[in-house]
Amino acid sequence: MSDYEIEILGYVAATLTTVSFLPQAILTIRTRDTDGLSLSMYSTFTLGVLGWLIYGILLKNNVIVIANSVTLFLATLILSFKIYNTFCKKKI
Amino acid sequence: MSDYEIEILGYVAATLTTVSFLPQAILTIRTRDTDGLSLSMYSTFTLGVLGWLIYGILLKNNVIVIANSVTLFLATLILSFKIYNTFCKKKI
Repeated sequence: MSDYEIEILGYVAATLTTVSFLPQAILTIRTRDTDGLSLSMYSTFTLGVLGWLIYGILLKNNVIVIANSVTLFLATLILSFKIYNTFCKKKI
Repeated sequence: MSDYEIEILGYVAATLTTVSFLPQAILTIRTRDTDGLSLSMYSTFTLGVLGWLIYGILLKNNVIVIANSVTLFLATLILSFKIYNTFCKKKI
């Protein structure tokens, strides 16, 4: 398999895992309902995605960089809602 | 940053994203309750993780291979329960 073909496979894999994350992410962003999420687990996930992004940048691997940039953007947005809902929102 | 340090960063990132996936995965495996999962989205995710694993093998990147092996094992198990619950389990 050529380097080019391996890269294409990487992009296909990255698209699949990102696409599978999208519906839940969009639903959470739209409704801002984060009750089903664990703050500690989501913080761990977001930090991990940031780590993967830095790893991809240092490795100069575009597949890892692009996939994790998209996920990090969505995960950070969701984590912000979770933090806001947990600490700032007054319970009625 | 040396190659060794970059690899360590990759393992840290991989550990964080895998650890964040574990509690939900263990809960699903223990209770076998897959009602909250979408079959199409979970199939897409599992296929994507398989793609990442093959990508990592072809790239000879141990970080990608190990992280995605663990996730693929858990995701396949959960997907099996989801398929069983969707198509085989008789509704009472």
